[in-house]
Amino acid sequence: MTGIVAGEDVAVSAARVLQRCEILADCTEESGRITRRYATVALRDSIRLVAEWMQESGMSVASDAVGNLIGRYEGRDPDAPTLLLGSHLDTVPDGGRYDGPLGVLVALACVERCAAGGERPSVNVEVVAFADEEGTRFGTAFLGSSAYVSGLGSEMLLRADAEGTTLADAMSELGGDPAAAMRATRSFEDVLGYVEVHIEQGALLEARDLPVGVVTGLAGQTRVDAEFRGRAGHAGTVPMGERQDALVVAAELVLAADALAREHDGLVATVGSLVVQPSAANVVPGHAVVTVDIRHFNDDTRRAATAELREQTVDGGARRGVEVLWSERYDTPSVPCSERLCGDLRSAVSEAGHVVAELTSGAGHDAVRLASVTEVAMLFVRCAGGVSHHPDEAVRCDDTATAIDVLERFIHRCGRNREGDK
Amino acid sequence: MTGIVAGEDVAVSAARVLQRCEILADCTEESGRITRRYATVALRDSIRLVAEWMQESGMSVASDAVGNLIGRYEGRDPDAPTLLLGSHLDTVPDGGRYDGPLGVLVALACVERCAAGGERPSVNVEVVAFADEEGTRFGTAFLGSSAYVSGLGSEMLLRADAEGTTLADAMSELGGDPAAAMRATRSFEDVLGYVEVHIEQGALLEARDLPVGVVTGLAGQTRVDAEFRGRAGHAGTVPMGERQDALVVAAELVLAADALAREHDGLVATVGSLVVQPSAANVVPGHAVVTVDIRHFNDDTRRAATAELREQTVDGGARRGVEVLWSERYDTPSVPCSERLCGDLRSAVSEAGHVVAELTSGAGHDAVRLASVTEVAMLFVRCAGGVSHHPDEAVRCDDTATAIDVLERFIHRCGRNREGDK
Repeated sequence: MTGIVAGEDVAVSAARVLQRCEILADCTEESGRITRRYATVALRDSIRLVAEWMQESGMSVASDAVGNLIGRYEGRDPDAPTLLLGSHLDTVPDGGRYDGPLGVLVALACVERCAAGGERPSVNVEVVAFADEEGTRFGTAFLGSSAYVSGLGSEMLLRADAEGTTLADAMSELGGDPAAAMRATRSFEDVLGYVEVHIEQGALLEARDLPVGVVTGLAGQTRVDAEFRGRAGHAGTVPMGERQDALVVAAELVLAADALAREHDGLVATVGSLVVQPSAANVVPGHAVVTVDIRHFNDDTRRAATAELREQTVDGGARRGVEVLWSERYDTPSVPCSERLCGDLRSAVSEAGHVVAELTSGAGHDAVRLASVTEVAMLFVRCAGGVSHHPDEAVRCDDTATAIDVLERFIHRCGRNREGDK
Repeated sequence: MTGIVAGEDVAVSAARVLQRCEILADCTEESGRITRRYATVALRDSIRLVAEWMQESGMSVASDAVGNLIGRYEGRDPDAPTLLLGSHLDTVPDGGRYDGPLGVLVALACVERCAAGGERPSVNVEVVAFADEEGTRFGTAFLGSSAYVSGLGSEMLLRADAEGTTLADAMSELGGDPAAAMRATRSFEDVLGYVEVHIEQGALLEARDLPVGVVTGLAGQTRVDAEFRGRAGHAGTVPMGERQDALVVAAELVLAADALAREHDGLVATVGSLVVQPSAANVVPGHAVVTVDIRHFNDDTRRAATAELREQTVDGGARRGVEVLWSERYDTPSVPCSERLCGDLRSAVSEAGHVVAELTSGAGHDAVRLASVTEVAMLFVRCAGGVSHHPDEAVRCDDTATAIDVLERFIHRCGRNREGDK
């Protein structure tokens, strides 16, 4: 039982959560950095640790075909609905300690505290640790929750990483089952909702000096892969007027995305990855591949911006003799959070003695995928300077304690409301 | 003697040269592409083949400390001066068959034809196959000829490639001698000049329908490494106004270099390599490194353009909160070719029955380094579409025959002029 006793001070539970985040940070692909991508030994090690902690708390533990870890804590009525809690265990390359793990470990802490007191809530609780949310290895954001909710398509399973390993092979190597991953992990008839605790990844809570905030909705997101096919040539001998420089057109896209986003309130657009070939100082680049990430709360605004960027880029390519292949890999609509679950979260925050702040999420989360099968809500935790996807990610222990306190109150409130429904 | 007989038709010699270019193309680091960088097994294999061909022709063959291959064919007077001929055997990644090898093999063909006829020219001839001209592995253009002419500095020997292997270690692994490479390969007191045959890498000869052209000078060149240090952040949550996006500032440099070069006649500027970190679709790039290559025949024009680019880039970085580290790795002045050697080349072209074309080189060549110790000249050979540094590089067999014919005439003319000097 990891040393937890009935009635443990919530500050002690919070300290344990942060200590576990440190332990998980040692599960990494690269020494000196936190890099935990899908189907790596580093990720497997982190899943094993969380599975052990779940078992010690008295949960029944299972993995699904894609490698998501599911711990179940039975409530007092086996026929009662199930509340899903969770977040993800993977990180971006050179990422932080809290984006993902914090949500899993806060949920686990709530179960541990229940179990230590011998409590059985009136709903069943499942804590899900998704195996891949960032998607940096296979370019597949929300991979874990997508598989969990609806299963993966075969085209997804055949995707290859930078080394040419397919997703299916990577999954098999780490003990997953690609064929089974084509079906959803469970049915959602008995599920009453999904609630995710996550660091804010913005600085609004910090500006308002509040520990947590209730998320009212998540921004929609477009992800584009753009490929530029020009012609390589000698940097000293091909006159400027005869060049078909793939990088120049790609650079125009980088600047157009930046300028367009600055023109529209709330729009963000990012070229996060840009790879040039052949990548030699004395060769005009013949080929470039970039990713573009575009987000806004209004789906029409986001789609119009994407279309405008596409048009500008294709025009630029035509002017410079560079072929542009524009592929919208996904278009995820914005997701409103459940009014009922948000109401319970607001009440829980209030009960815990804090001002209720409402905010929206510019980041995508597993909640986006869960929204297709159940009601969702999120609780954001203040993070230092709004920094995330970076080794400097930091959360305060007292804020973590507040998150545990609020989520615990929410679970009990959820159960009470259920009983009222009957 | 590789089947060559006295009085062999020059077309047959040319066909052998092109066949050998094909054979060397199979010495590659990457299947399906021609990639032959310094101190790789692929390059070593190509050097061994050329050494065998040199030996078969009756040359005495040696390697210097850096791995340059030197074949010497004695003239009739051991005290006569030595004419250096040559080019390089390495390629850019995914390069062509002729950039470098053609010059080595045309020179070798001239010696073979002399030797088959039992001729001894009145000058000694050395054919040098430089081990690294492109410099793509260690970022060291003209490495082979630099070592040959003046030896390498210790800071050069400590340079690392992308895998962290130092130049000194790579040199040792392939049988070189880093300590000895710090001294020049030979003294140049007995050397009367260096003449290099090379594909044009431009389309001027093609436009004028001429097989070869005499080079009057080589453009000066600046190589810059620019590093951009911003701050990584979440692509969905860091507002545009708070970003310190390293890639955006790097993209501004890409476009500024392109625009500046288009404004000045004869100026070329290229960002050939751009590497982003952390390179994930959902992370604002915190770090980027680019190379800039700037060339012009007028050194003042080139240096003014470099200064202007630097200023624009540093200003752009300051505006966007991105630190710019601008490092001018080298500044190679333009090199005029020797009037005397050019005169002999012009006469040889004329004697061979062709119109004499004069042109300048936008590309750097080993001749640039040789110019610090002796007179230099170059003969360009027409290449299809001006394409180089690309698998589509192509030269015609009849043009290759002309190059052999001209260089043979040049060698004899050189000897005759020497005798006249006495």
